[in-house]
Parts: sequence; structure tokens; C-alpha cells
Amino acid sequence: MPHAPAFTALLFGLRGCLVDFGGRSLDAAKDDPVHPTPGALDVLAWLRRHDVPCAWLDDVAPDHGKHLSAPLPDWLQAIHHGDAKPWPAPDACWNALMHIDVAQLDGCVLISGEPRLLQAGLNAGLWTIGLAACGPLCGLSEAQWQALDDKQREHKRGKATLQLFGLGVHSVIDHLQELADCLADISQRRLKGEKP
Amino acid sequence: MPHAPAFTALLFGLRGCLVDFGGRSLDAAKDDPVHPTPGALDVLAWLRRHDVPCAWLDDVAPDHGKHLSAPLPDWLQAIHHGDAKPWPAPDACWNALMHIDVAQLDGCVLISGEPRLLQAGLNAGLWTIGLAACGPLCGLSEAQWQALDDKQREHKRGKATLQLFGLGVHSVIDHLQELADCLADISQRRLKGEKP
Repeated sequence: MPHAPAFTALLFGLRGCLVDFGGRSLDAAKDDPVHPTPGALDVLAWLRRHDVPCAWLDDVAPDHGKHLSAPLPDWLQAIHHGDAKPWPAPDACWNALMHIDVAQLDGCVLISGEPRLLQAGLNAGLWTIGLAACGPLCGLSEAQWQALDDKQREHKRGKATLQLFGLGVHSVIDHLQELADCLADISQRRLKGEKP
Repeated sequence: MPHAPAFTALLFGLRGCLVDFGGRSLDAAKDDPVHPTPGALDVLAWLRRHDVPCAWLDDVAPDHGKHLSAPLPDWLQAIHHGDAKPWPAPDACWNALMHIDVAQLDGCVLISGEPRLLQAGLNAGLWTIGLAACGPLCGLSEAQWQALDDKQREHKRGKATLQLFGLGVHSVIDHLQELADCLADISQRRLKGEKP
């Protein structure tokens, strides 16, 4: 990820992004074990090494957020929704940026599979990266996703990807293992003068 | 101003923008009379008629802000700086947008002659319009400004304009009487796909 240090800050969703493949936890018992999604811990470690400010934000209750974020590193900042206006209002995203002392909007990115959060990020003026396979639009656990045959996966991925691009997001990837290439691509687009 | 209704919201500075030509009030006695700048009341009336959300923001103390904004219409929202991080941090601008329930950053504009506030607006991702003659970079009262000969005015205007464009603002005008044309120009730039 040679270009990513030029990013000002990265905001991540929690469910269906950093943890909880498929974003199914709201239907699950609150004491079910929570697992990071593929690539999540590697991406966070890389960002930490390169001093890129980052945080997660989600509109879950604080205790649920604490449970869901248990597998994530302690240093990662948690932004609770609090009394911010509900997504897709931009408020929660701006609050998150202020909370992590971001000095400028330029170069700030939101990564999520949740359409309402992505719309909030678009409304806040962020670069947005949608997650197709591991987000709630596919809505399958990792095991269920892997159990699909190629054709089934392609069908579900295609449908979710179209929905995400329909919102206006800037890129769509399957899961965080593909984030490095996606950030490099956005860096190139920024170098060419594109704005979110 | 046929295109201005497409703007989402307009934020104005107070000193050296809506009132207090030259932005000299911090040096003046707090009970000195305050006058709107040329064009300020007309612009506000027009925005009101077209239901464009707008507000002023400034980093003066609340009682000083109340005194300074006395000549402005009651309906105009006042955003006090409060404990927001000082300009040029983007926080005060985002707080102002949230305060007036703005649904998206796209189409939001800041108008001010104060370089630190303009830089805050740029950091927040806003369109920014710098005021040369009536802002603190020229720093003359309206009477002093009018008393200059053309060459003196051109010299001061040119110097302030260069400083403002040096910040990266999107347009520079002398005072609010020129705002209509400036907004029409920004509308055209937006229609062509330019982003702030």
C-alpha cells in the first residue's frame, strides 16, 4: 500500500466490515462469539504502522459495540453514535472525524457494507468504499459464502455491487483483503485531481 | 440569482462580512454602533425568500456576537463557536452545518473575509468565497475605503485578493453586493462537475 499514507483518516463500519462477516449480528444473540472479517486485522496493523488515523463507527448500543469490537486492537478508536442524527445524515461521520482530530476532509475515507452508513459518508463528502461480499447486502456468514458455488457467489456479488454503485460509492470490493489495492487506486484517482 | 436555490446552505462570517466593513470591531469599543455591510441585508432577504438555509458563524464571545448581529434579521441563525477547536480546524464549520440540519456537504458555501475562517471552510470541504475589500485583509472602514482613490483601492484590493486565492478559496469578491454573480458562477462550475 505505497500510497495510503497520503490518506488523512480511515473510518470503518463495524458489523459487516471489521467484524461479523455478512453483518448478521443484529439477528444473533449478543453473546455469540464475534470474529474479525478476512483481512481486517492485517489492514489495521498496517494502518497503525503507518500512523494513519482510523476509527470504527456504528449505530449499535455502546455495550453491543463493545462486545462486537472485542476482537479488534485496543488502540483502535471507537466512535459511538450517541445522539447524532440517524444515517444517512452526515452528522455521525463528521462527529467521528472531529473525534479523531482530523484537520481536513480531503483524503478521508469511509469503508462499510451498510448502505445507510455509506450514504452518510457520501453526504459528509468522504471517499467511500463499499463492501459487497462481507456486508449486509449479501448477508451470509463467511461459511455460507464459501459454501456457495462460483455462479451463486457471482450472482450475489454482482447484485450487491450494483446496489452499492447505485448509491454513488467510489469503489466496491468484496472484503478488506482487497482494501490495499483499492486504496492505491483511489490514491491514483486523487493524484489525477478526482474529488469525492 | 437564478441558480442559487440549488445551493444546500450558505454560511457567513460576521465581522468583515455581514457587518463591520473592514472587520475592525475587535479593536473598537463594544458599544460602538454596528452597520451591515453593503449588500448584506439584500442578500439575506433574497436567501430567505428562496428558502436557502443560512447562518452566521464567528469566534467572538456570545455577548459580542449578539451585539454585532443586532442589525441582522432575527430569523438568521447564529452559530457560536463554543468549545469547538479554533480555526482553521474544520470543526466549527461542520458544527454549523449540523446545527442548521444540512443533509449533505454538496452545495454548501462559506463566505468570509477572515483567512483563518476561510481556511477552516476549505478544510471542511466547503465552497469558499473570500471577501477582499470589506474583510480584515484590507481592514479599512467603509468611509476610509471610499475615500481612497482608484489606484490605492486597486492596490489594496489586489493584495488582499492574491492572499485569499493563495489560501485556495474558490472565488474572491469585494463585498456582498457582488455575491449574486459569484454564486451564479459557482453554480456553473458545479454544473460542469467542479468540486470544492
